[in-house]
Amino acid sequence: MTVSVELAPLDQAAMTAVGEHLDRLTKPPGSLGRLESLVVQLAGITGSATPRIERPAVAVFAADHGVTAQGVSAYPSDVTAQMVANFLNGGAAVNVLARAAGAELVVVDVGVAGPELTVSSRVRAGTRDMTVEPAMTHEEVLAAISVGRNVVRGLVADGCDAIALGEMGIGNTTAASALVAALTGRRPAEVTGRGTGLDAGAVHHKVAVIEAALRLHQPGPDDPLGTLAAVGGLEIAALVGAMLTTAEARIPIILDGFISGAAALVAAGIASNLAARLIASHRSAEPGHRVILEQLALEPLLDLDLRLGEGSGAALALPLIRSATLLLDEMATFDSAGISSPSE
Amino acid sequence: MTVSVELAPLDQAAMTAVGEHLDRLTKPPGSLGRLESLVVQLAGITGSATPRIERPAVAVFAADHGVTAQGVSAYPSDVTAQMVANFLNGGAAVNVLARAAGAELVVVDVGVAGPELTVSSRVRAGTRDMTVEPAMTHEEVLAAISVGRNVVRGLVADGCDAIALGEMGIGNTTAASALVAALTGRRPAEVTGRGTGLDAGAVHHKVAVIEAALRLHQPGPDDPLGTLAAVGGLEIAALVGAMLTTAEARIPIILDGFISGAAALVAAGIASNLAARLIASHRSAEPGHRVILEQLALEPLLDLDLRLGEGSGAALALPLIRSATLLLDEMATFDSAGISSPSE
Repeated sequence: MTVSVELAPLDQAAMTAVGEHLDRLTKPPGSLGRLESLVVQLAGITGSATPRIERPAVAVFAADHGVTAQGVSAYPSDVTAQMVANFLNGGAAVNVLARAAGAELVVVDVGVAGPELTVSSRVRAGTRDMTVEPAMTHEEVLAAISVGRNVVRGLVADGCDAIALGEMGIGNTTAASALVAALTGRRPAEVTGRGTGLDAGAVHHKVAVIEAALRLHQPGPDDPLGTLAAVGGLEIAALVGAMLTTAEARIPIILDGFISGAAALVAAGIASNLAARLIASHRSAEPGHRVILEQLALEPLLDLDLRLGEGSGAALALPLIRSATLLLDEMATFDSAGISSPSE
Repeated sequence: MTVSVELAPLDQAAMTAVGEHLDRLTKPPGSLGRLESLVVQLAGITGSATPRIERPAVAVFAADHGVTAQGVSAYPSDVTAQMVANFLNGGAAVNVLARAAGAELVVVDVGVAGPELTVSSRVRAGTRDMTVEPAMTHEEVLAAISVGRNVVRGLVADGCDAIALGEMGIGNTTAASALVAALTGRRPAEVTGRGTGLDAGAVHHKVAVIEAALRLHQPGPDDPLGTLAAVGGLEIAALVGAMLTTAEARIPIILDGFISGAAALVAAGIASNLAARLIASHRSAEPGHRVILEQLALEPLLDLDLRLGEGSGAALALPLIRSATLLLDEMATFDSAGISSPSE
């Protein structure tokens, strides 16, 4: 099983041009801090010295997890389908935040267990229980990756110029923790957290479930797709596909929190140069997210103790990212405004 | 010299109502992290269980500083007036960010040295050199506070429901560092930074200048207005007035970085219960800002290494604050969306 994606490194000429322009704007050099490194990165991703975000989109992939049979979540599996309905009715956090950001929201059922509510891209009604057998077959992984790739192809064809990625799937912090442990070599206890709200005893049980799955499958970083099949999820595979196609299209990928971060680890294992095309919107309260950010050398824009998922953090960060591009585009230069340089 | 302002404590009933409503929304309890404590605070400030931000404003106060004669800034004093012109032409960072946030921008010359460009509220063309004499007389301090109060009265009359505060004044990180040292008892070296871009030697000189001013005036936390007169600035006094009137109007005060933070220290020394009405937009790169945030028990929303001032950080945070209010207002509840509760 292979997925072959070649990505060019970031466009150095565009990055240099933006860096030079930033120093001509009416502000002390470097005084816009992280917003400056962000627009330099956007230039490198897009190859444009005037990167713009005018049509952002938020894509949310939903799926269920067989491992919920092991009692790893505070909520029943039914909630995945119920929340997809909530997305379609406009009542979830990600709906509010996408509207506030002026972003199109696309909800994709890639593997929910329950009645189909959206135009279906369902590969299978939930994964298998990873403690008993691999969560997915290789064919299912590839199909779910294709779903993600096709969704992004559609958004790119519509003119979207930034893709924020989110997910919904009761049980998916268990899959994400298992992926992170397998791909980074950390112990499950280091990368497993409360998810939607487990107490300490339940987190302990969740760790034991993940340890059992890892003992069974022995996945590792040399085989990101095999690891994804063994302990991942259909929505996580779709996120991997979405990231690969977004990167190929030279469009910035706005990560949400822990789950999309775990997908990014897989995607970065498939395509070198992918990590440089990721923008981490926020630092999640989940402990495994810190490990992901470290591994991918990402510095998140926000640190607000969010742990909701859905793409909520990514949507929340969109106006901030857009503001950085507007500063580059609209600020006066020292020359044009007739402002004195630093005193010598 | 006294300014007497009585502020009620935050409205506990509104805060409790918002806390309870947050737990009915379709998300795990607490999963929106800091956004949840933020809307609870907004409820406490406004006394409304449905706090809204529909007409935010950014008020920028500009003034010059006599202490620039001591060579404490990387830029010449002329830049204050030049940047005011830039604000009026729409070319500065705060213009771009206020536009992006849908906020009205008001620029107030409360003490610029140079030709008057705006409808003048100028108290004096810059402060005196604090190393030689008090920066302002008591009358000048009270006049500058009144300027700030009047600007906010006008914005409140226009229906503004959130006030972000910024400033422009070459030399004002020196005044702010002197204020923070005097009001917190920290050594000047602990609360003095690079400002617009000093090197290490120049920061050392800036510290010596502040030490000389503090030796001369011996200001202290028991006399915030006297301290403001001795080592403050006209724009800082106007910010103090703006904060007092905003707090009285039960409207949230969005602080920018180091300078508005120093003004907040003064305002909190005048009016108890003021600190609870402050929202810290970001953590500035200036070392003294950490001391201010600690003293006022504020946790900033953003940490992006900004060190520009102008109100840029406050304007950047406005969409995020507004998003928090929209989540409270627009999300579905578990009941209305028919979503299952946590499994028992």
